[in-house]
Amino acid sequence: MVATDIATRVWNHTFKLDPIVRSLLDTDFYKLLMLQMVWGLHRDTAVTFRMINRTRTVRIADQIDEGELRAQLDHARTVRFSKREMIWLAGNSFYGSTQIFRPAFLQWLRDFELPPYELEKRDGQYELMFRGSWTHTMMWEIPALAIINELRSRAAMRNAGRFELDVLYARAKAKMWDKVARLDALPNLRITDFGTRRRHSFLWQRWCVEALKEKLGSRFLGSSNVLLAMEADLEAIGTNAHELPMVYAALARTDEALRQAPYEVLRDWQGWYGGNLLVVLPDTFGTSSFLRHAPRWVADWTGFRPDSAPPIEGGEAIMRWWREQGVDPREKLLVFSDGMDVDSIEETYRHFEGRVRLSFGWGTNLTNDFRGVAPAEIPSLHPISLVCKVTEVNGRPAVKLSDNPAKATGTPIEIERYRRVFGSAADISREVLV
Amino acid sequence: MVATDIATRVWNHTFKLDPIVRSLLDTDFYKLLMLQMVWGLHRDTAVTFRMINRTRTVRIADQIDEGELRAQLDHARTVRFSKREMIWLAGNSFYGSTQIFRPAFLQWLRDFELPPYELEKRDGQYELMFRGSWTHTMMWEIPALAIINELRSRAAMRNAGRFELDVLYARAKAKMWDKVARLDALPNLRITDFGTRRRHSFLWQRWCVEALKEKLGSRFLGSSNVLLAMEADLEAIGTNAHELPMVYAALARTDEALRQAPYEVLRDWQGWYGGNLLVVLPDTFGTSSFLRHAPRWVADWTGFRPDSAPPIEGGEAIMRWWREQGVDPREKLLVFSDGMDVDSIEETYRHFEGRVRLSFGWGTNLTNDFRGVAPAEIPSLHPISLVCKVTEVNGRPAVKLSDNPAKATGTPIEIERYRRVFGSAADISREVLV
Repeated sequence: MVATDIATRVWNHTFKLDPIVRSLLDTDFYKLLMLQMVWGLHRDTAVTFRMINRTRTVRIADQIDEGELRAQLDHARTVRFSKREMIWLAGNSFYGSTQIFRPAFLQWLRDFELPPYELEKRDGQYELMFRGSWTHTMMWEIPALAIINELRSRAAMRNAGRFELDVLYARAKAKMWDKVARLDALPNLRITDFGTRRRHSFLWQRWCVEALKEKLGSRFLGSSNVLLAMEADLEAIGTNAHELPMVYAALARTDEALRQAPYEVLRDWQGWYGGNLLVVLPDTFGTSSFLRHAPRWVADWTGFRPDSAPPIEGGEAIMRWWREQGVDPREKLLVFSDGMDVDSIEETYRHFEGRVRLSFGWGTNLTNDFRGVAPAEIPSLHPISLVCKVTEVNGRPAVKLSDNPAKATGTPIEIERYRRVFGSAADISREVLV
Repeated sequence: MVATDIATRVWNHTFKLDPIVRSLLDTDFYKLLMLQMVWGLHRDTAVTFRMINRTRTVRIADQIDEGELRAQLDHARTVRFSKREMIWLAGNSFYGSTQIFRPAFLQWLRDFELPPYELEKRDGQYELMFRGSWTHTMMWEIPALAIINELRSRAAMRNAGRFELDVLYARAKAKMWDKVARLDALPNLRITDFGTRRRHSFLWQRWCVEALKEKLGSRFLGSSNVLLAMEADLEAIGTNAHELPMVYAALARTDEALRQAPYEVLRDWQGWYGGNLLVVLPDTFGTSSFLRHAPRWVADWTGFRPDSAPPIEGGEAIMRWWREQGVDPREKLLVFSDGMDVDSIEETYRHFEGRVRLSFGWGTNLTNDFRGVAPAEIPSLHPISLVCKVTEVNGRPAVKLSDNPAKATGTPIEIERYRRVFGSAADISREVLV
């Protein structure tokens, strides 16, 4: 006798929508940290976020139905923080600190909802834009990316047979486990799931996180995904993102104010957070420029997250700077999170191990590596480089230079001005895969 | 919200026994065909079957708990043919023929139960014996083998973590699918699941059968497992086994009667069955001897199943014999089923395709190939060469010579006598892996 849960089965066949975003905690932790500071200091700033598909060869609008996309985005707008989520945010300790979120902020968060979106189809791509108060538009980045990426996965697998799907996931699991087995050989590894935004699907990310937890034990620090961290009793991991210096820079009225913007961000940040949350993201306008003009107190921060330079080169530059400031790198932390996969993690680990505190953020190549797993290869299952970036602040254009020119965003005129102000570093364009 | 079927979950955690054999149809089809003839012609013959582990290096009794083994064997003895199973046996057509089972036989079958067993532990092995009426002892072979093999699998995986298990099955699926993808390239393939006795588990065999059905379509002819054939609406496949000539030979009173025994079997068989069920198993006492003394009418049978000679060599010998009898091999069938796997299936297919009708029985390497799939290799998951053979008939010893001396069974003195009577062929011992 086979016991079938009839209600579940009927539900599976009749539901109108399989929501991709079912919780406002299904986002990256750093968004909540940044949101609290933005809520505290920049409640009236208007910031526009815009989806940008850097993999132009993939015509997303041909892959995903507009009606389905709208249904998912509309559904996400109906989601609110639940009572138990609010209790967890208030009562949990993050990075060892309790009450990291202020009661007034949590009070405000209770009624939070994602703001309206603007969607148009153009030339095989979706133009997806979020205009409005920074406190609201910023919260779209992760769910919007997760929605589009999961809709792509679903579309790619729509014509697969039952056993083809079974084997596809079987192979994906085997592939992922092979990677984890390699990581398992690194005794002092510290690694984190950073894969929410470009994940294959929510359920797949959850599988990956739980598998890492079982296999790597305490070497797996936790997940940037707040919901998964809560559900799996892991640390929620993350600090801050490029949007902070980008907005601060766009608001700067003079070139000198522009040059100071990245440090202004840090000054504000340390007014709100301490300890392990003091991780510098130095590459928004080029790491070498950042280090050249950085005040001495930046060396007191816990660590750096080089996010667009080649890991070894980028890490070495930061370590040199620490030593110039009279600081021993062995007391400092480097977090690597730019398109990492097992090869680069191993190489970076072997290079830095013992010379600095190390940790890795493993993103797209953890939660969306379905290359070569479909019984008949499905190219539309391959991840793409989709981002959601700040493009305007109070009507002024926003810019990111990055250590990798392929990752620069902004209008050409403004990019030119920023390059002049920050000095154009000897950056090497690397192909951006994910 | 996650919907959990509470009753199922509680059941999973409280049941006393997870039965391996839940149906008397969970056996090979040829057992039922042979049983009907034995019931018709040899109801009073006493036949002893005995479990033999040809992989002596594996100490089964150290791997499997005796209490668990007894519980499974005892449970199998409580199983009866159910009403719907009886209806299906009576109403289904097999190989295109209806009413292949006579009403009086089915009437008798209704009360069938597996007879007592004798179990002892000796030197790391289980001595498992079935003594009694042939009509009953013969039905233990397949369930007894399936029980021991599945208990081995369960024991091997007892200490695996949740995700380790998940990945183990994921890899097994991927490995199996890779094989099927290779077979999919053979346009005129005809292949059958013969993997019941040495399967990893019942559920795994079912997965394999359903996967083959989806991927290979009509090139997958069906399963030797009657229960799976019924459930998946596939053909039940099989004809006859070595036990028939072994018993007939053991009963022979003179050397000449011994020499004629294999043909006596065929004479009796064709009184009960026709068409595609007329498949000769020629190797019990050596294929070359069998062909040398075979009466002309054997060439009228549908085909041969060479079961211990190397496939190409064995097949060519039979084709030569057909041609000597003035028969065109292209109208005849060769069934290959001895330890086949994708390499040997491909090679045999390429060799014979277009020159003879071909079909493959895929056994252990289909349903129990877990080599290299566990995250940390588990050698006790590897299949062993476990057989359950006739050892005595009405108190007289039974013998099998086979084309492969490594597969011979019987007392040395009797083997010697059989070799003299049948003539010892130039047989080459091949390692028996499964």
